[in-house]
Parts: sequence; structure tokens; C-alpha cells
Amino acid sequence: MSDLISARILKGFRDFLPEAEIRRALLIEKLTEVFREAGFVPIDTPALEYSDVLLRKSGGETEKQVFRFTDNGGRDVALRFDLTVPFARFVAEHYSQLYFPFKRYHIAKVWRGEKPQAGRFREFVQCDFDIVGSDAACTDFEILKLMRQSLKAIGVDKILIHVSHRAIFNRFLTRLQLTEKSADVLRIVDKLAKVGEAQVLEELTALSDEASAQKILSYIKGGVPAVKPELFEQTLAYIEELAGGPAADTEHMREIYRLISALGINEFYVLDPSITRGLDYYTGVVFETFLTELPEIGSVCSGGRYDNLTGLYMKENISGTGASIGLDRLLAGLEQLGKINKDEGFISALVFCTGDADIARNQQIAAYLTEHGIPCEVFPDPKKMAQQYTYAEKKYIPWGIFPETSAGSIEDQQITLKHLPTRAEEKIPLRLAQEKIKTKAQ
Amino acid sequence: MSDLISARILKGFRDFLPEAEIRRALLIEKLTEVFREAGFVPIDTPALEYSDVLLRKSGGETEKQVFRFTDNGGRDVALRFDLTVPFARFVAEHYSQLYFPFKRYHIAKVWRGEKPQAGRFREFVQCDFDIVGSDAACTDFEILKLMRQSLKAIGVDKILIHVSHRAIFNRFLTRLQLTEKSADVLRIVDKLAKVGEAQVLEELTALSDEASAQKILSYIKGGVPAVKPELFEQTLAYIEELAGGPAADTEHMREIYRLISALGINEFYVLDPSITRGLDYYTGVVFETFLTELPEIGSVCSGGRYDNLTGLYMKENISGTGASIGLDRLLAGLEQLGKINKDEGFISALVFCTGDADIARNQQIAAYLTEHGIPCEVFPDPKKMAQQYTYAEKKYIPWGIFPETSAGSIEDQQITLKHLPTRAEEKIPLRLAQEKIKTKAQ
Repeated sequence: MSDLISARILKGFRDFLPEAEIRRALLIEKLTEVFREAGFVPIDTPALEYSDVLLRKSGGETEKQVFRFTDNGGRDVALRFDLTVPFARFVAEHYSQLYFPFKRYHIAKVWRGEKPQAGRFREFVQCDFDIVGSDAACTDFEILKLMRQSLKAIGVDKILIHVSHRAIFNRFLTRLQLTEKSADVLRIVDKLAKVGEAQVLEELTALSDEASAQKILSYIKGGVPAVKPELFEQTLAYIEELAGGPAADTEHMREIYRLISALGINEFYVLDPSITRGLDYYTGVVFETFLTELPEIGSVCSGGRYDNLTGLYMKENISGTGASIGLDRLLAGLEQLGKINKDEGFISALVFCTGDADIARNQQIAAYLTEHGIPCEVFPDPKKMAQQYTYAEKKYIPWGIFPETSAGSIEDQQITLKHLPTRAEEKIPLRLAQEKIKTKAQ
Repeated sequence: MSDLISARILKGFRDFLPEAEIRRALLIEKLTEVFREAGFVPIDTPALEYSDVLLRKSGGETEKQVFRFTDNGGRDVALRFDLTVPFARFVAEHYSQLYFPFKRYHIAKVWRGEKPQAGRFREFVQCDFDIVGSDAACTDFEILKLMRQSLKAIGVDKILIHVSHRAIFNRFLTRLQLTEKSADVLRIVDKLAKVGEAQVLEELTALSDEASAQKILSYIKGGVPAVKPELFEQTLAYIEELAGGPAADTEHMREIYRLISALGINEFYVLDPSITRGLDYYTGVVFETFLTELPEIGSVCSGGRYDNLTGLYMKENISGTGASIGLDRLLAGLEQLGKINKDEGFISALVFCTGDADIARNQQIAAYLTEHGIPCEVFPDPKKMAQQYTYAEKKYIPWGIFPETSAGSIEDQQITLKHLPTRAEEKIPLRLAQEKIKTKAQ
């Protein structure tokens, strides 16, 4: 026995036992349905790609985190660390076969060699949806609408989507003659929620001067006591003035608000100029989503508009807009909010196996129930009753079927039907049991 | 422009464009539904694992094909090359949290550095379903039943599942005093369909002697002119005699046949003693599935019973039985048989965008239709009509909506409803259009 291999997994990686995997699968299925009904289609790309394709210019941080190696053929390859870079490569490679605006969703695993810590994993599922090949405000609106619809579909109705616009902010920074320091400003401002006003002010002052720092702080506070859905237009007017007046960017934002209003869903959106998405590649509208009852877990769905998705691979310039749902964070949030049904099972009835059971008859009983729309399992051998009850319980099976010895037709077969949670039972023909299970399921 | 990175993927890897990915996704969804209704639950395991865990003793061939490297933390890691080894590790690691018989399905990508050739890829999806923790014939039967149900659910009703039993064959080989050469015999016999009788006979003769070779050939032909569902019992009696008479293995097989018969599905199963599954780790029943109309593409669903799944990781002995669907091969087969619906789209109507369109109104129209159960898209900007028609066509959208300028309620909004495949059109209020689309969809 000394040569047993220890059954263990890598740090930062996870197994999903059935209960957790069912939860994740059902969530993904609901999201998939919403995406499809909004005209988004699925694509798939390889988990492994050429390193130069994946790493592009991103360099530094990303490179350190990526799982990169030389394959048996001497190729420099890497596991994808997000779904955006492969999507850019995909659009460039299949450009002539696609139709635009191209709306795709992609739900798949990505890998990052990050330091494992609470809530951070080296393998996780990303869930992206994007519209590329159009710069119409209408497509930003569609992403914003879909963010709300996706969350609604999984039972999360209390959300607030914070929207902002990078270009308006950039115009403002240009007026402050801080264009060259804009990356640093974005980095500092992005920390507002985490570190607080005082700290942000201090860092901004160090970067520029106190007057500019104060102005930036005013801008990101939007000229309102607190960002609220009903103050969207007021905030927009305020930052528009600070940025130097109306321009394409503010009109774009106004059009988005007009569409949100036309659909009567404004209560879910706030204009929040403090949203910058840090160092991300966004160039236009950006957005983050918070659960009203659980804002402290951070944004569960973020994204924005980017210019030139495919610029590193082709001459054509393709603009796009999209968002990504943080599945792990969302699942954790749903759990905290008690919105996860823990008793999720797929089977309605278990045919128990007694010592004198007729195994073939048990299979026929299960087939009869399944044909009548009742998913049913058969316990395969006459193990102890306690083990069979545990089995039913672990799988959240509500009904137990105990066949009596009897000949005759299947539907007249006498059985004891037991409601397992209450242990209430009665002896009836299978036909009646079938009707009873169906009635109760309604 | 000289520093553009070539957008390309690795040899043996594939992108899935929407049309192909939709097909694959719908296939997987149908299979998933069948698995769940049969009591199988999903699990997930990491794509990347410790090399010693994955490679175990398998050595040689497998090792050469695996994507293996040293990660940034100096760990010797590898991408999984199947779903069985990770499942064995999973069962050993979570043994105390599982309940038996444990029925799981797992549909996920695996990676092998095989020489890319027609139909062979370095990244592909495996679709496994297994029952572990029971050696009852009833569980082999459940796998066999599920194989048929899965294929039926995706529209494939003309199949023949070839069943055999390794232990009966081994008893037979022992009588021939060929126990020590059994691996070689299995390897040779496994090629029967590919190389023909003469070649098999020649190789077997070289391995033993002509008399033994002839006996082995008789055994694998089952004593019948051709394997047929109605000759199952006759073939079983024949090989039972050659193996030295009744024993647990032949009783096990007889029990499986009794269950198949009790469910009235015998027409889909043949006892075919030439099925050995080559050098695989199976120890009991083995099976392969052929499309009656397309046997030449090979088995689309294979598997068998194995003893001691977790033997390398723990002392407990766990027997199991399971099968794997070859998704790629199956998809190719379905396509050849014309069983793939190529016009698969998720959207029923497209709101076209004309030059004077009211973008917000268009969104309201789409929202109205969606609320009435008609998945609907909006073309976002007034691009050329030809482009918008192409868009609808590429996405298999059957209905076009062309809004007229009009005020009033949404349901009274005048629109031109166009049936895109026929170009038939009429001007009606949205309310009627909605009813019409729904009626036609039925």
C-alpha cells in the first residue's frame, strides 16, 4: 500500500461536487437562455493558444500570471487567461465569415496563476457577452439591458448598475492638463470605494495639486449628494459642464438614458462618474453592477465599450461593447441572500430494492413512471434500507416506491407510496401513485 | 502595420463558429437532460492536475500524448487527457462525502497531443456517464439503457449496441492456456473489424498455434452466422460452453439480457464476443455502439465495467461501469445522416432600422414582442437594407418588422410584417403581428 498516489488537486483549483455543480450548471443554463433570446449566439475557442497571440502587448502583470509552457512540438503556448483576447483573435481570424453587429456569448473556463486567496481561484468560469462591429449607443443600451435581464432571470431583482463614460472623464482631465497622467488618475479614482475620499484626495494631490485633486473629486461625486436613478440627467449635466460642454460622448450617454427611459427600466441605472474600470482597455461607456442588499461583495457584472478590439491582429478597426458576469462572486452572493435552492434534485421517485425484490419488475415500474413524465430511479440491489433512504435524501428525491409481490399489469401493480420527507405512506396501485405524484408536483 | 500578430490557432485545435457551436451546445443540452432524468448528477474537476495523479502507471503511450509542464510554482502538472482518471481521483478524494451507487455525468474538454489527422483533435469534448460503487448487473443494464436513451433523444433510433464480457473471454483463454498472452490476444482480436479474419487468424497463429487461433476465431464469431438481437441467448450459450460452463460472469450477462427483455428493448442489443475494447482497463462487460446506417464511422458510444477504479489512490475497492459518447464522431455522423437541423436560430423576429427610425420606439416594439413570448432583436442603426437582410438570414430569423412612423400605444403601432423566407408582407398593427407570428410558430 506504500505506493498509493495521494489523491489531491492543485492549490487554487477546485472540484465541484454534485450539489455545487448542479447550482452552477442551473445558473449557467438560465443565463444561456436569456442570452439566446436577446440574439446572442455561442462560440468556442481553444483553451490553449500561441503565447504571442494571447499575451500581445499586455506584458508585465498578465504575463506573470499566465500558465505558459513549451509543448512537445516546441511551440510556445499558454492557457487563456480571459475570453476577450481569444475573442479578438477569433473576430480577426473569421472576419469574413461573420455578420455585424456580431453578438456573442461565451461561458468557459480561464486560468490565472494568481496567489490563491479567499474568493480567488486559478481556474474559474467567465461568462462574457459582447456586441462588436457597431458603435451605436443602442448597442451599449442592449448590453445594459441584458445585464439587468440576466440577473433578473436568476432571481436577483435588487440591483443598481453604475454607468460612466471614459471619454467624458478624459475631456475633463485634458482641461485640467492631466492627460498624460490619466492612467494614474484612473488607478487612484478606481480605489475610491475601497480606500475612501481622504486617501484618494491625498494621492491625487501628490500626483497633481490640491486644486486639481478637489476638482477631480467633485467630478467623480457627480455634483449630487449621492448617485440615484432619478439624478441621472442632473449628474450628466454636471459632468458635461466640467468636461467643457456637450460633445459626442455626452450625447451618447444621453441617448442611452433615453432608451433606458423608453423601456421604463431607469430605476436600475445610476450615472456614477467614479466608475472608471481602472486600467482596463475600455474607451467609452463603462459599467459595474452591485447587489442592493449586498454591495460589499463588489461588482457582479462589469464591462464597457472598447475601440479597436482586433487592432493587434488586423487593419480593420472594430469597436465593441460588452460585459462579464462574475459567476463565482454571484453564486456566493446568491447564497448569502438565500436565493439558492439547496434542495435541487432532478428525480421525483426512487424504487427501493427489498430482499425479495424482482429487479426486472422494479425496472418496469421505473420505466412506467418515467414514461408518464416522472423522472425515476431504481436502487440496484437489496442493500440496507438505511442506505437506500440516505441515497434518496442526498439526491432530494421526494417519493419512495416499495413494490409488493404481485403479478398482473404494471399499472395495477400494488406498491407502497411513501412521501419521504414526511414518511406518510399508503398502499395503492402504481397508476394511482403516478397520478398522486404528478398532482403533488404541481 | 508590420507589427501585426498573426491571428492563428494551434494545429489540432479548433474554433467553433456560432453555427457549429449551437449544434454542439444543443446536442449537449439534450444529452444532459436525459442523464439527469436517469438520476445522473454532474461534477466538475480541474483541467490541470498534478502529473503523478493523472499519469499514474499508464506510462508509455499516454505520457507521450499528454500536455505536461512545470508551472510557475515548480509543480509538475498536466492537462487531463480523459475524464476517467480525474473521476477516479475525485471518488478517492471525496469518498466520505459521496453516496453509493454514485451516478455521475461529466461533459468537458480533454487534451491530447496526438498527431492531428482527419477526425482527430488535440482538444475535444468528452461525455462520460458512470455508476460506481455497485457491481450489480442492474447497473450495467442501466448504462446500456441510457446509451440507447441518449441516442434516441438526439434523434438516432437506428443503432446496435454490441455487448461482450471480458471475464468470459478470459476464462476461455485460460482453458487454452493463453492467460499470459491475453493482452496480446485482446489487441489482435480488437482489430478484427479493421483488418479482417485472415489477418487476425495469422497473427493469432503466430502468437500461439493454429488450433488455438481457430478456436479463438470461433469464440469471437459466437457460433452464429452473424450477431443479431434475437441470437443473444444462443451466442451466450455458445461462448459459455467454450469458457467451461456457467459461472458468475455468464449469469451476470444473462441477468442483463433478462432486464433488457423485461423493458422490451432487446432489438437494440447484440451479444458480440469480438468486442474486447482492446487494451482498456475494463474487466467485466464491455460495449460499443454502431449507427445501423453508418457503421463505418465506428463506435459512437463505448464503455464497460472496471474493477477497482480508485485502486491507485486508496485501499477501498470500488467497482464501476460507464460509457463515453464520442461527440465529434456522433456530430459528424448525424450530419451525414441529415439529422442536423442547420437552420437552428433562437430569434423569431428582427425589427429593421430605417433611416428615419425612432430607435427608442424600435426597442419598445421588441420589448413588446419579447414579453409576448417572441424572442426579438433590433437592428441598432440605419445600415443598408441589404446588410440587415443578410443579418436576419445568417441568424435564421423568419420575421421582419418594419415600423411605420406612428404615435399611439405600442400594440396599435402600425408595422409591416414580412415573412423573410417568402418576402410576403402586410401592413398591420403590432398586436396582430404578434398573434400571427405566434400562430405560425405552432
